[in-house]
Amino acid sequence: VSAVPLREVERRIEKLQDHLRAARPPLDGALLIQNVDVYYLAGTFQSSHLIVPARGKPRLLVRRVLERARDDSPLQDVLPMTSLRDLPGHLRDLCGDPPWRLGLELDVLPVRQYRHYREILGEKVEAADVSATLLEIRAVKSEWEIERIRRASRVIARVFAEIPELLEGDRSTYELQSLFELRARNLGHPGVIRLRGLNLDCPVGYVVSGPSGAAPGHSIFPIGGRGTDPCSPAGGDFEKVRPDTPIIFDFLGCIDGYYADQSRMAVKGTLPAGAEEIYGHMQEVLRFCEENLGAGAVPSEIYRRALDLVESRGLSRGFQGPPGHAAGFLGHGIGLEVNELPVLAPKFHRPLEEGTVIAIEPKFTHPDWGVIGIENTYAVRRDRLENLTPISEAVIEG
Amino acid sequence: VSAVPLREVERRIEKLQDHLRAARPPLDGALLIQNVDVYYLAGTFQSSHLIVPARGKPRLLVRRVLERARDDSPLQDVLPMTSLRDLPGHLRDLCGDPPWRLGLELDVLPVRQYRHYREILGEKVEAADVSATLLEIRAVKSEWEIERIRRASRVIARVFAEIPELLEGDRSTYELQSLFELRARNLGHPGVIRLRGLNLDCPVGYVVSGPSGAAPGHSIFPIGGRGTDPCSPAGGDFEKVRPDTPIIFDFLGCIDGYYADQSRMAVKGTLPAGAEEIYGHMQEVLRFCEENLGAGAVPSEIYRRALDLVESRGLSRGFQGPPGHAAGFLGHGIGLEVNELPVLAPKFHRPLEEGTVIAIEPKFTHPDWGVIGIENTYAVRRDRLENLTPISEAVIEG
Repeated sequence: VSAVPLREVERRIEKLQDHLRAARPPLDGALLIQNVDVYYLAGTFQSSHLIVPARGKPRLLVRRVLERARDDSPLQDVLPMTSLRDLPGHLRDLCGDPPWRLGLELDVLPVRQYRHYREILGEKVEAADVSATLLEIRAVKSEWEIERIRRASRVIARVFAEIPELLEGDRSTYELQSLFELRARNLGHPGVIRLRGLNLDCPVGYVVSGPSGAAPGHSIFPIGGRGTDPCSPAGGDFEKVRPDTPIIFDFLGCIDGYYADQSRMAVKGTLPAGAEEIYGHMQEVLRFCEENLGAGAVPSEIYRRALDLVESRGLSRGFQGPPGHAAGFLGHGIGLEVNELPVLAPKFHRPLEEGTVIAIEPKFTHPDWGVIGIENTYAVRRDRLENLTPISEAVIEG
Repeated sequence: VSAVPLREVERRIEKLQDHLRAARPPLDGALLIQNVDVYYLAGTFQSSHLIVPARGKPRLLVRRVLERARDDSPLQDVLPMTSLRDLPGHLRDLCGDPPWRLGLELDVLPVRQYRHYREILGEKVEAADVSATLLEIRAVKSEWEIERIRRASRVIARVFAEIPELLEGDRSTYELQSLFELRARNLGHPGVIRLRGLNLDCPVGYVVSGPSGAAPGHSIFPIGGRGTDPCSPAGGDFEKVRPDTPIIFDFLGCIDGYYADQSRMAVKGTLPAGAEEIYGHMQEVLRFCEENLGAGAVPSEIYRRALDLVESRGLSRGFQGPPGHAAGFLGHGIGLEVNELPVLAPKFHRPLEEGTVIAIEPKFTHPDWGVIGIENTYAVRRDRLENLTPISEAVIEG
């Protein structure tokens, strides 16, 4: 486990400050409270508020635990905060006299908490939403971050190699899911998955197979599954895996808080010829993305062309989810959260920047076979994608 | 897995409607979007909005998946919702002509999403915070709910019985934590833990032991631990469990979305006499609570008297967390979320109602031994507490 280096944090804070000053009207600073954003900018998950002024050094105000925050964070100005009532004083220190125009994470900050801040900061503050800016900055990774994602992939690749062994015996998809996760954890996976937004959660991975794996999911993912009960209505279930039926393993590796997302196919026995063919087409879609995505590529355009390719193979109905329930995207940014920017989807017209990390996951839902597809996580390079999850794509036989 | 019965949902909705009408000024209805609240009132976790008018039948508007929501929910009026723009029409159907005074879950609804609703509903809506009301209603459980919590406890009790076996071999607290969780999952535990609020999460359980287990946590729990890395800074770590050192297992059972919380002590070898003594005092605190909590008891008063008892035993420094980092409560409501009302803490003066479910967890943090304590989940009965987690409290020897 490596602490976040000072130069990393400095570069991130500089980028945020550039944005704060470039905003129209300019912002005097940002007040950040979501734990992933605080970790990104200050290197600690301890319960804290982070003030980033438009100019000058940031200050981390720690509710608990101060000693651990000081150990974790490369920042210099790390102080205890016993009461939110101290906030105006700290803002004055860093951003000058009020009124302040302040960036807040309005995409995750609950209304009641927001009103409490407004009350404490009084009429002297004008609140702006800084979350889109933060997510855009976070989308483009440094080499240090990309190395973490690469390592996250390597750890979980070891469990993918053990799938033949996991498939021995008479197991349900839910058992396979739990067993895979246990093995990942025993290799250092923290077992925590972070998604941004209300009502979003997912486990370390999904294993689905056959008809119950074809059940549409309530969430935003291109993989559904019946799940274990109405309260956990996605992913694996208690039915035993059937022979000669496709099984998909979709798992998130994690190192130092960074995720790598990958999916591979497996089968006990032999894949039906039709399933094999669909899998070939999903790989074809992935190859198309690999060949056409690089710095400067436009996500919405690649998405459209990928859908054309899928249509030409006769697989539109079922692509990215059962008919009527398709997820409207083909790939998603990933880093400290699983659902980051950019998205390979219709509304994303901004050309990709070098260093962007994106998971691409063409997946077809078949009513009898479940989900058939593949997923890798990539770093966007000048003229290509670098695969950060480079394990064999061959169907794993158990 | 049992669907939520119609009579359960009807009783809950009636209670909410009573509150909506009794509010001053009265509310015309509530618009609910958080998945746990929707499950509580409509019996499904599918992605939905629920409109509960002050009078008449509620309507569930399902974004995805309609078929599954109709299968899960005992409600009659379950319709698809393709666009939020349809909301005003539905509100008109159920709550009459605008303006509407509408209850929203402002404790979890993010500001950006809230503004989006306001934009769609226009000037015709006045928003009130209905979350406190909802949480008060949810605090008092029906016998059907209490039975779920009892079952959640029974399932996880089977894994507690396997602790001697888990302690064989040379394992770290993190390995024990993952292994316990795997066994719970294989008995049907969904592996998902829900807490209400920004920045709150926890795994299915914690296992901590020795000095690293005494590290203060960043979160609100009376149990900390070093954790595995700065991004997962609580619970077990990769150090092997030492002989003759207390180990605490703190785990959440789950059935049909309902949690039961319990902690037990274990040791490889023999507990030091001093640790044994501390454990005896924590049990004494729990007995005190059992004897003094029942319908009508005042949480803040019992909390104060329990702290007096702890002080008389010379254990104030370290109770509920390391000195300077103590959690300010001794117990918490629990149900569909782990952090429900009421709280056994200074500010909770409202007398307990029959049917309230509360987890009580006296825990002492010792710098060398880690956390020593116990936890049970109870239903408040007319003149006593009923223990829903009735497994042996003897220290488990491995």
